[in-house]
Amino acid sequence: MSMGRKKIEWVANYMPLLNEIGRLGKPFKGWKIGMAIHMEAKTAYLALTLNKLGAEVIATGCNPLSTQDDVAKALSEMGITVYAKRTHDEKEYLKTIHNVLDHKPDLILDDGADLTVIAHTERTEVLENLKGISEETTTGVRRIKVLQDEGKLKVPVIAVNNARMKHLFDNRYGTGQSTWDSIMRNTNSLIAGKNVVVAGYGWCGRGIAMRAKGLGAHVIITEVDPVKAVEALMDGFEVSNMDRAVEKADIIVTSTGNKDIIKEEHLLKMKDGVILANAGHFNVEIPMEQIEKMAEEKFEARQNVTGYRIKGKRIFVIGEGRLVNLAAADGHPIEIMDLSFALQSFSLMYLSENYKNLENKVYEYPEELDKKVAYMKLKTLGIEIDYLTQSQMDYLKKF
Amino acid sequence: MSMGRKKIEWVANYMPLLNEIGRLGKPFKGWKIGMAIHMEAKTAYLALTLNKLGAEVIATGCNPLSTQDDVAKALSEMGITVYAKRTHDEKEYLKTIHNVLDHKPDLILDDGADLTVIAHTERTEVLENLKGISEETTTGVRRIKVLQDEGKLKVPVIAVNNARMKHLFDNRYGTGQSTWDSIMRNTNSLIAGKNVVVAGYGWCGRGIAMRAKGLGAHVIITEVDPVKAVEALMDGFEVSNMDRAVEKADIIVTSTGNKDIIKEEHLLKMKDGVILANAGHFNVEIPMEQIEKMAEEKFEARQNVTGYRIKGKRIFVIGEGRLVNLAAADGHPIEIMDLSFALQSFSLMYLSENYKNLENKVYEYPEELDKKVAYMKLKTLGIEIDYLTQSQMDYLKKF
Amino acid sequence: MSMGRKKIEWVANYMPLLNEIGRLGKPFKGWKIGMAIHMEAKTAYLALTLNKLGAEVIATGCNPLSTQDDVAKALSEMGITVYAKRTHDEKEYLKTIHNVLDHKPDLILDDGADLTVIAHTERTEVLENLKGISEETTTGVRRIKVLQDEGKLKVPVIAVNNARMKHLFDNRYGTGQSTWDSIMRNTNSLIAGKNVVVAGYGWCGRGIAMRAKGLGAHVIITEVDPVKAVEALMDGFEVSNMDRAVEKADIIVTSTGNKDIIKEEHLLKMKDGVILANAGHFNVEIPMEQIEKMAEEKFEARQNVTGYRIKGKRIFVIGEGRLVNLAAADGHPIEIMDLSFALQSFSLMYLSENYKNLENKVYEYPEELDKKVAYMKLKTLGIEIDYLTQSQMDYLKKF
Amino acid sequence: MSMGRKKIEWVANYMPLLNEIGRLGKPFKGWKIGMAIHMEAKTAYLALTLNKLGAEVIATGCNPLSTQDDVAKALSEMGITVYAKRTHDEKEYLKTIHNVLDHKPDLILDDGADLTVIAHTERTEVLENLKGISEETTTGVRRIKVLQDEGKLKVPVIAVNNARMKHLFDNRYGTGQSTWDSIMRNTNSLIAGKNVVVAGYGWCGRGIAMRAKGLGAHVIITEVDPVKAVEALMDGFEVSNMDRAVEKADIIVTSTGNKDIIKEEHLLKMKDGVILANAGHFNVEIPMEQIEKMAEEKFEARQNVTGYRIKGKRIFVIGEGRLVNLAAADGHPIEIMDLSFALQSFSLMYLSENYKNLENKVYEYPEELDKKVAYMKLKTLGIEIDYLTQSQMDYLKKF
Repeated sequence: MSMGRKKIEWVANYMPLLNEIGRLGKPFKGWKIGMAIHMEAKTAYLALTLNKLGAEVIATGCNPLSTQDDVAKALSEMGITVYAKRTHDEKEYLKTIHNVLDHKPDLILDDGADLTVIAHTERTEVLENLKGISEETTTGVRRIKVLQDEGKLKVPVIAVNNARMKHLFDNRYGTGQSTWDSIMRNTNSLIAGKNVVVAGYGWCGRGIAMRAKGLGAHVIITEVDPVKAVEALMDGFEVSNMDRAVEKADIIVTSTGNKDIIKEEHLLKMKDGVILANAGHFNVEIPMEQIEKMAEEKFEARQNVTGYRIKGKRIFVIGEGRLVNLAAADGHPIEIMDLSFALQSFSLMYLSENYKNLENKVYEYPEELDKKVAYMKLKTLGIEIDYLTQSQMDYLKKF
Repeated sequence: MSMGRKKIEWVANYMPLLNEIGRLGKPFKGWKIGMAIHMEAKTAYLALTLNKLGAEVIATGCNPLSTQDDVAKALSEMGITVYAKRTHDEKEYLKTIHNVLDHKPDLILDDGADLTVIAHTERTEVLENLKGISEETTTGVRRIKVLQDEGKLKVPVIAVNNARMKHLFDNRYGTGQSTWDSIMRNTNSLIAGKNVVVAGYGWCGRGIAMRAKGLGAHVIITEVDPVKAVEALMDGFEVSNMDRAVEKADIIVTSTGNKDIIKEEHLLKMKDGVILANAGHFNVEIPMEQIEKMAEEKFEARQNVTGYRIKGKRIFVIGEGRLVNLAAADGHPIEIMDLSFALQSFSLMYLSENYKNLENKVYEYPEELDKKVAYMKLKTLGIEIDYLTQSQMDYLKKF
Repeated sequence: MSMGRKKIEWVANYMPLLNEIGRLGKPFKGWKIGMAIHMEAKTAYLALTLNKLGAEVIATGCNPLSTQDDVAKALSEMGITVYAKRTHDEKEYLKTIHNVLDHKPDLILDDGADLTVIAHTERTEVLENLKGISEETTTGVRRIKVLQDEGKLKVPVIAVNNARMKHLFDNRYGTGQSTWDSIMRNTNSLIAGKNVVVAGYGWCGRGIAMRAKGLGAHVIITEVDPVKAVEALMDGFEVSNMDRAVEKADIIVTSTGNKDIIKEEHLLKMKDGVILANAGHFNVEIPMEQIEKMAEEKFEARQNVTGYRIKGKRIFVIGEGRLVNLAAADGHPIEIMDLSFALQSFSLMYLSENYKNLENKVYEYPEELDKKVAYMKLKTLGIEIDYLTQSQMDYLKKF
Repeated sequence: MSMGRKKIEWVANYMPLLNEIGRLGKPFKGWKIGMAIHMEAKTAYLALTLNKLGAEVIATGCNPLSTQDDVAKALSEMGITVYAKRTHDEKEYLKTIHNVLDHKPDLILDDGADLTVIAHTERTEVLENLKGISEETTTGVRRIKVLQDEGKLKVPVIAVNNARMKHLFDNRYGTGQSTWDSIMRNTNSLIAGKNVVVAGYGWCGRGIAMRAKGLGAHVIITEVDPVKAVEALMDGFEVSNMDRAVEKADIIVTSTGNKDIIKEEHLLKMKDGVILANAGHFNVEIPMEQIEKMAEEKFEARQNVTGYRIKGKRIFVIGEGRLVNLAAADGHPIEIMDLSFALQSFSLMYLSENYKNLENKVYEYPEELDKKVAYMKLKTLGIEIDYLTQSQMDYLKKF
């Protein structure tokens, strides 16, 4: 068996929801689904599942750097039309977006809205056949809302990111675990007893802090929201501004969604040997340009770890300041993506069934489907929960 | 020094925000504030603080059962007009509400909306002088919204419960700790190694579960919301329906906000010696009537603990199924109430300054005051946090 | 039912091992057991259990201050000969020790060795009938070893404190929980977000620190053993010397087994409102004399809490610096004492069966009885564990 | 810079104790140290440190499979005589042991006692110059004690494993972290919400269980010692026999030091997709032979992960049942080995200074050196702890 196929088979072991959804018949029979997603094993298995549900699937990546060619090849051999290639430059990448649209898909599964935006601007002829779009990310939703505000959106869109089963889970449990998986495997450094600074106490930051504590670290939180700062304190963490935190830090993880979290003056205060990792979406939180400029010396310290010498002290950056769990490890754990992709699958089914009654706007993720995914997850685990009785429902209405 | 005064002086030690607010001059000079609140040391100190800020304060309880007469007496000796008495029956209690309104207060601080509702129905003549109302609870807000919907609300109202510094804190950290304080002191029972069932994984349930885990218990969560159930699971708890959970339970704590959480069939499945406690607002979660009916024997097992024998097995209920931290301990920790009462103080100041520009409706708690309380808390702890730079604010707008 | 009896009945609910042991027939038929123990509900139930096993039991306290007269009265009504009284002075207390010895017991259950020492010095005539002694505490064992070293010990003695089921459990899980139970009930103060200093990282300190963390505190450990200090660090705690720790402390708990843990210079550095509690055996860890001497003012701050004003700052001491869980709460949780008393019961049975073959020296607790108690505990919980197969035993011998 | 050298430079960043020890002058000037250790970056840095301290160092591996040739090459280029090679078969490996002995070392640093045993049997001529041996492992110590018991031991030996700074740390914090690092990187599987069975609640098992809990798992402990089983329960874990545990298990980690922990009947009860990993020293805990025999199908599931199909269900074994953190990851975190190697360095210095006064027997690790390493660790972290005063030392003697 090829390595690409092995990778896909492996993730299939831990995607019980997609496995169950794959047994739901052929709801997509006669439908073409175009998708632009990170081309790796987990998404490949989503493509295969949609195919099993009857769809003709045409796929490309949403960023050439995340494309794994062996997976793309295996996927192609398993019946999916695949255009992604890791070596593609920006122009070649955009060409593959057009390749997908050439198939005139009925539904689009988008990650970042490249398919959607190009369909609505350069390739409006494909809108005729397009019935609905399911968008994975916040960034993508924002881009689509611009289309909507300009009155240009021509199909109903479902914002998957806003589903509770997505944003409550992938940030806390997905980022929380995979950030430390990445830091540990890339440094072989002990976490217990270390001073770990986590910048930002949003969902990601909470997950990262919770797991750092679980690994025995002393965790220091920095925040700009005073309410979150008090929460962090009550959760047992030390709270500080970055200026003081950097002086104690052995490891700093940024997860704020903002830029310039670490500033020039902080770089000068750091301890020799400090490790920097970013868990925020964009590589703007650690000031890579500033570091490059200030460094007397730059060297490859370990695989995925770059060393810089600034005023004689060494600073180590994992994965060049990019999202540390993706740039230097395997991304979210499989089971987390299984939840997200179950949401995606139901989103696409919902669109295929209801598109005629939907307006051309961005919809929140349907609450009943959100709960459906949660119930499925519980079922695969053999867990039964309680149900409201009629008299309890009445009581809740009264109070 | 009297016991009542001692109690008030004690809480003053751990209410740094009220202490600081008390130094803000005389913003309420010439204002009369009528309040109906649980008459105990923490609220007494709020009344004294408002008095120190210049207000003439007229106070009664919001429930005779929570009135501590020694505190009421001390408060009265310290310059507050007090009408509350523990022995009051319903009629006498309502009389004290009228007593407060007789003073024609400028502002009302309400806990459950009795002052507000009676002012708007039986005593509308007091509305003339009334400039604003600050309501502590969800229940009170709901009652006031009925007035609003019926077009009867004649003053602006601020819903303090919705402030982040209130609902994010008193449920998790306040209820979380005080529930276990109460269970431990009333039973002298070991928590470590016990099977603790927590019904409901809302803010209260999370707090209770988190602290039970922190005390070494094995925690089982019951829920009706499948998404919260999966969250509980990812947080490391066992998740089950109540039917199976009761068979394992050594201690059951209800915190759902709903009724009939424990049902007849559950009572029959419980282990001999099980301990039941309710941390939900109303005493409807544990089926006291059902228990009384089914019991062969009822006996006082320990102070605040009633024993029942059902089919030969003993079931112990703390505090008669009422809110366990209030009915059988000292309620929320002092510092939690300090946060809430800082919010109340600022709410009243806000109303006194802005009432002319406000509509006669229920307002959300002002975000800037919410943050102000958080910043004050951090300041009393000597903690500095970060601030957004202009370029960071610009970045956030862009993305 | 009398209050004393109610107290005894309550603890009986949570002492499954004593309940089971009470069903083991009449092994003590015809035997007289003299005991000097803290006279409260849990020990009363041990006396009753020994009585149920056939023994004639004659009891007194081991410290008048810990005697609960209502329990003593109830015990006496239930068939035990009781001499303890709370109001006894030292002389009257010693008289009760002689009263017990007057009965010429076959076995002695001692807590601190008063019965043992007096029997071997002033009342040597009782040694003739004495077959064995079971001693609960380290202090008692030390006193008895002095007798042994001087060649005066005339009966076999078993040191119960050294059993794994005792010292591994009562310090960590017993002291850990009951210390916080006491601090919370006596202060109504929030633990979450507080800086809690735990002096000493032995078994007690570990338990106290673990539970403080579980309640949301930021925990700082002080130690004199550098190895334990590094362990504390790896367990995620901050480690510091006392000099720096006191500056941050909101609550300080001592559990070192040594004196002068808090020194004069520390008292001057403390924050206003700091809370001091001692969880070590003797009241020498917090320097009460020094505090009394330095204080400008001393006042009763709350039940069990004394306030001192030193250079204008308030210091609050719970339970006068005595063991905080006993002096100001209900001592160890019931289930912990159940383990200890099961060990005691088996120790006495062992002595009654084997005394003829034992030498007059101090014996370690028999390993097989230690395990027997552990197996019983697991059985009462319905837990089955694994057993070594023959081939596994052989393997272990080989490696 | 060569990859081997880079690896060594990386670990040097996180070995502050070896760095400090390297500055202690030339205590080994004129001394030859022969060592047989796992030839990888961390041990290489130990060899370099001993060399820096003046010693001529001659090194080989203690197991060809753990030899990293790039590190061996770099080490050799940096002035150490190196004989290890990964491709060596048993005979070639033993040859390298003789190669080291050919140098007639003054001191031996052994890991498993191969150098020691061969020196005392086949190469007794080297004993003449040999002054002392420092042995890292329990296994090695056992082998040397056989020599001692047979009266054949001709040099003093220090058992480093028994140092508190070794066995209290590498098992709990080293194995605890690195086991999960390995499982996460090799499976990309979510740990939160999983049922993780940990077989054995010794130091290793505690570390593994503690970290699994910290990652959000529900942890089930199996034990044969009932006392440890009750401890696990009080620590908040579920306790069960293996027979029931396997039915719930998503991941099973063995760490008992015994064989046959998982038996044939257990294999048949496992859930489809279960993951097995061994954290015990020898690969006897997971029954690989039995699995191979029973499997209908065997396949490479992922790098380091072998899949087996038994009665239709898949079982995944990481690292072929060998020590999972070494066979499929990078072994203990660097800082843990820094502690161990600081102990080794001081052990060798102690032998070089005191060998004339030592007997030819196995010595426990000297307490003062154990504490010295702990103090050094604290010092590198800038942590000061307390010291006993004279009056405190006197007090401790008295009680």
